[in-house]
Amino acid sequence: MSEVVRERRAPYVAVIGDGDPRGPDAHRLLEWAEEIGLELARAGATVVTGGLGGVMEAASRGARGAGGQTIGILPGADPSEANPFVSVPIATGLGVARNLVVVTSADAVVAVGGRHGTLSEIGLALRMGRQVVALSSWRVESEHRLGGPRVHRARDPREAVTLVLRVAAHGPLTQPDGS
Amino acid sequence: MSEVVRERRAPYVAVIGDGDPRGPDAHRLLEWAEEIGLELARAGATVVTGGLGGVMEAASRGARGAGGQTIGILPGADPSEANPFVSVPIATGLGVARNLVVVTSADAVVAVGGRHGTLSEIGLALRMGRQVVALSSWRVESEHRLGGPRVHRARDPREAVTLVLRVAAHGPLTQPDGS
Amino acid sequence: MSEVVRERRAPYVAVIGDGDPRGPDAHRLLEWAEEIGLELARAGATVVTGGLGGVMEAASRGARGAGGQTIGILPGADPSEANPFVSVPIATGLGVARNLVVVTSADAVVAVGGRHGTLSEIGLALRMGRQVVALSSWRVESEHRLGGPRVHRARDPREAVTLVLRVAAHGPLTQPDGS
Amino acid sequence: MSEVVRERRAPYVAVIGDGDPRGPDAHRLLEWAEEIGLELARAGATVVTGGLGGVMEAASRGARGAGGQTIGILPGADPSEANPFVSVPIATGLGVARNLVVVTSADAVVAVGGRHGTLSEIGLALRMGRQVVALSSWRVESEHRLGGPRVHRARDPREAVTLVLRVAAHGPLTQPDGS
Repeated sequence: MSEVVRERRAPYVAVIGDGDPRGPDAHRLLEWAEEIGLELARAGATVVTGGLGGVMEAASRGARGAGGQTIGILPGADPSEANPFVSVPIATGLGVARNLVVVTSADAVVAVGGRHGTLSEIGLALRMGRQVVALSSWRVESEHRLGGPRVHRARDPREAVTLVLRVAAHGPLTQPDGS
Repeated sequence: MSEVVRERRAPYVAVIGDGDPRGPDAHRLLEWAEEIGLELARAGATVVTGGLGGVMEAASRGARGAGGQTIGILPGADPSEANPFVSVPIATGLGVARNLVVVTSADAVVAVGGRHGTLSEIGLALRMGRQVVALSSWRVESEHRLGGPRVHRARDPREAVTLVLRVAAHGPLTQPDGS
Repeated sequence: MSEVVRERRAPYVAVIGDGDPRGPDAHRLLEWAEEIGLELARAGATVVTGGLGGVMEAASRGARGAGGQTIGILPGADPSEANPFVSVPIATGLGVARNLVVVTSADAVVAVGGRHGTLSEIGLALRMGRQVVALSSWRVESEHRLGGPRVHRARDPREAVTLVLRVAAHGPLTQPDGS
Repeated sequence: MSEVVRERRAPYVAVIGDGDPRGPDAHRLLEWAEEIGLELARAGATVVTGGLGGVMEAASRGARGAGGQTIGILPGADPSEANPFVSVPIATGLGVARNLVVVTSADAVVAVGGRHGTLSEIGLALRMGRQVVALSSWRVESEHRLGGPRVHRARDPREAVTLVLRVAAHGPLTQPDGS
């Protein structure tokens, strides 16, 4: 019976965004996602995504380019649906409910652009106490004073990485949340 | 073998919000939720909530006061956790993932105040093509142009009910969404 | 503010089985499911199913024929996928994970025939402390002694209804279960 | 932009069983689980478990002892709940619904003993087309002829590993399943 001593785990950071970005910003979003993946991997973080295309693939490609570990939490039941830059595919069979797993399995989240699915992940991340860094993504603002985790806005990929690694190091902010 | 002809189903409207609102707005939010429940039931709609306290209970109480049907989609496994104004308790055992069921089971959604869980439901509703009416709740805004369902802001309970019944009548807006 | 006194809730009984039974037994299974739905409704129970065809539709048809309430917990996001005998459709968007909701929302479960999805529901029901009555369905047997809920075998629809109403009245058997 | 060529992925095998086995068989089950984990890792397979104690921990310990990768699909939201032999913790926040992810993320499944949760995983595995090898676990038998995946019984850990690697190599058996 071999004993393993658990070392401090490297942070898991989810990178979320559009699986098929279009329009004038698409190219820039993909470049940013790739740079974020690269810098996260250089910093020793594991990159978690939804495992499909677009921003998810770009972030995974960046991370793999730096030799990082990339986890892909897939909506379907077939691991081969993962993009080729996912090193650990997790086929969930959950459909949209896999969005909860994407953010809960991470210590903190970076949103790069994104549509309604990304907004759902931002909300679920905050609900689970995970802090979110947003780069050209959703602005969300409550009309009431709220404590707990929040969305931090970044101006560029470098700032996004710096911010997300800082909040990830503190782990989830636990909070009572009956909503 | 008896045959049943399916009539046009009455709309299902989810009312979402804080399970335990506090602060100076709490009383007003609960009053609004109760009025919304009442008006929805008067209009023949079924009220769907997360089945617990606060805004969920107030909306259910309002609807029951008008003789309406109230569905409570509970996070836990015990139907007796439902507030006493839920006529159809659905114990899911899903925890936070039940938020997806709350909004998907409805044709449209009204958010009254709310914290991070409510934001997650707004995001999931949009992801599933359900339109959302927000009353003193979250402002969410993309930095990109998006089609599909959106968040409509209401100024008072009456406007919220009018708006949500109008969008509910058109059903979900289907959309490709890879995010 | 109207107050509602919660009366003892009528039992919720899930009827599970094949959505498209084939082979020499198919006709008999559908007849049995319809009779079970009818008898459950006569006894005042609400019938819960997965909302689709085959055994689910037959049980719902039987229950509606006796004026009963029928809940359909659908895998998809479209309530109109429910069979026409579902009075309360719940579109979950969960795919196969909706099987957990079918059994957790019920006080006890009757399995009529069924394939692998039905076996998953039997397992999930037991895991959630719900007792199961099996009619021409799966035999499941542990090689170890286990306490808690179990599968009771019935010989005909009448015995299935008698048994399931008896175990439903006692509610879930709670149990520690780390497996 | 670095390109990664996807090589044939090593098989993912889920090892499922009791999180806290008791009784006269407990010690033997844990030894078997550890041996199965060890042999799977030696064969190059990734071991997937539910990430907690008992059989899950023993299988992970065995696999880590041979330098293997171990994925732990946790029910809760805290990755530190994983046993110390999990190299890739996935905190899902799904509760019992994580059982679906444990089996769907694997190519095939070995059940070692187990209670009702294990039975639910066996059922879900078959539902998702994954073949199951059972070692001193549940006997499940349909009263009808069924095609598709099935439960193969093994007499000892070595046979379990041989069998599960064989069926894993063929991947999921797809099947229409409306049940």
